[in-house]
Amino acid sequence: MSTRESRAREWAERVRSGDVRAAARLMRDLEDGYPEAADVLRALFPHTGNAYIVGITGSPGAGKSSITDRLIAQYRKRGKTVGVVAIDPTSPFSGGAILGDRIRMQEHALDPGVFIRSLATRGSLGGLSRATSDVTRVLDAMGKDVILVETVGVGQDEVDIASLAHTTIVVVVPGMGDDIQAIKAGILEVADIFTINKADREGADRTERELRAMIELRHAVAAPMDHDAAHRFFRTEAIALHVQDTDWVPPITRTIAIRDEGFENLVDAIEKHRAHLEEGDGRARREQARAKAELLGMLRERLVSEAVARLEAERGQLEALAAQIARREANPYDLVDEVVGRLS
Amino acid sequence: MSTRESRAREWAERVRSGDVRAAARLMRDLEDGYPEAADVLRALFPHTGNAYIVGITGSPGAGKSSITDRLIAQYRKRGKTVGVVAIDPTSPFSGGAILGDRIRMQEHALDPGVFIRSLATRGSLGGLSRATSDVTRVLDAMGKDVILVETVGVGQDEVDIASLAHTTIVVVVPGMGDDIQAIKAGILEVADIFTINKADREGADRTERELRAMIELRHAVAAPMDHDAAHRFFRTEAIALHVQDTDWVPPITRTIAIRDEGFENLVDAIEKHRAHLEEGDGRARREQARAKAELLGMLRERLVSEAVARLEAERGQLEALAAQIARREANPYDLVDEVVGRLS
Repeated sequence: MSTRESRAREWAERVRSGDVRAAARLMRDLEDGYPEAADVLRALFPHTGNAYIVGITGSPGAGKSSITDRLIAQYRKRGKTVGVVAIDPTSPFSGGAILGDRIRMQEHALDPGVFIRSLATRGSLGGLSRATSDVTRVLDAMGKDVILVETVGVGQDEVDIASLAHTTIVVVVPGMGDDIQAIKAGILEVADIFTINKADREGADRTERELRAMIELRHAVAAPMDHDAAHRFFRTEAIALHVQDTDWVPPITRTIAIRDEGFENLVDAIEKHRAHLEEGDGRARREQARAKAELLGMLRERLVSEAVARLEAERGQLEALAAQIARREANPYDLVDEVVGRLS
Repeated sequence: MSTRESRAREWAERVRSGDVRAAARLMRDLEDGYPEAADVLRALFPHTGNAYIVGITGSPGAGKSSITDRLIAQYRKRGKTVGVVAIDPTSPFSGGAILGDRIRMQEHALDPGVFIRSLATRGSLGGLSRATSDVTRVLDAMGKDVILVETVGVGQDEVDIASLAHTTIVVVVPGMGDDIQAIKAGILEVADIFTINKADREGADRTERELRAMIELRHAVAAPMDHDAAHRFFRTEAIALHVQDTDWVPPITRTIAIRDEGFENLVDAIEKHRAHLEEGDGRARREQARAKAELLGMLRERLVSEAVARLEAERGQLEALAAQIARREANPYDLVDEVVGRLS
């Protein structure tokens, strides 16, 4: 065993034994792309797969942070250890506002049964799913029973969560208006549970009726599709899997996060969904879909950086190549053929 | 020249000469991934780069379709030919509603100076930027003067448009509430022009004041950053370029699409931005950024499909591999090393 390998194993052991500083440094080094950190993740991998992952998604302003906060408390009451990945939409303009929620969640900071890690979007929403996935693996290896993943609630991010989580909660608020449209773009399809938050607001009954109508429509549409047809239609494995699970009708729960109301019910709903998945092959199928998505994601990232390194060694800097393409002095299709040809 | 190559060249010629059926079939075949279509795109590539590309983004419900519609009419009045790429958030639940707008836009269907192509998200938002880029190339090769790209207005999609477009319009509506948060997540940074649509609604003045404050803040933050710093911070080239262009202060225009008010002003603003880009090296820099993003995107796609094909030939079906990973019988990090090692 090389020194590097044994150092990685030692680090992995510290993470597995619950060493918080070793885990925190690993997460930071993974985000910064240190190769040593990747070695540790590789060593941890065989010891993961035990944690139950719950995704929390929904529009900005729906109260996802408060719900996450209450779910932590509820799971702690039930004696479970909890890991949290919270994705913060930081930009020079928003950092402040959202950070407030994050700090509030730090009431759990002194509880050794809770580990919270924030990831920053820094203006870009891409590349987050990889970092989120890495952090859940570390929390999983640390032995956390439940991992809560709170999304930023904008776009692709909301659909990606469904490839990662065992149970996905979609948070809505009464009187949604535009939100209904956002829900339509692929988010409804990934919900295992809905929760109407701020349920004391006017319009909660109407929102529930609308959701129920959508759920019924989904069942009517999905029922005749086999897995391949659903996959062709939705283009993502995660949605196809959710749509196909016609034995599960997403329940609609109600919460009022600021008054801590409705969270026993919500956790009961999560546990019921978990029992449903574990009764059949649902959990195994979801883990397989996640493994596939991650394998493809890693291949994508590593192959491209390797290919660019070789291209630059032979043809000059990427920027100069891009400038030639922009001036139509080089054809990108030929360049790609050249690089890809080398794989076969 | 092979038969296949000469067939591709012939097809490309028909597209360049403005043959609408040849162009429509090419777009469809590109979306369906036919290799012959890729050959045609390769043949068209040297003849592209002339069209001016305008992106239209903003939250669902802000009126992007109506604005696109009015912009078509305005550009036609000015004697320009127009291509349109409209991204539709179709899911079993939304197809109907949004399609209404699309049909309305067909008032231009009989005008040979206008070509409209819709792309469906089908529940998934990934993979769209590639298809959008391909369609703009075809419209460009057809000789369209201006290409309008209307996004679905959800998430990553809104940021991607900035790598593609020369001018990006961000549509907002008075009394935004939650929308302000959405704008914060990377969308503000890509705006070359803001338009407050539905400007007859209450709150337009306040929205304008808020936008102006944000723009000033952006300038204060961006001014001390060099390009590399901006790129590190924002992680995407497109945003870094926009932030760096401190000579351009995004104007805020007002439109009322349903009454066709404000569109002369909006097109004037676009033309002013175009003149600004073409005075310096702004247009060349944006085209270079686009070329780079596309080259990386194509490499990503082709390398992964090639790698998966080889992996499946040697190790069995991807699904079976994913199942082994999910059961912790295989380590994805080792698999990736194996595949990537072959490139070097």
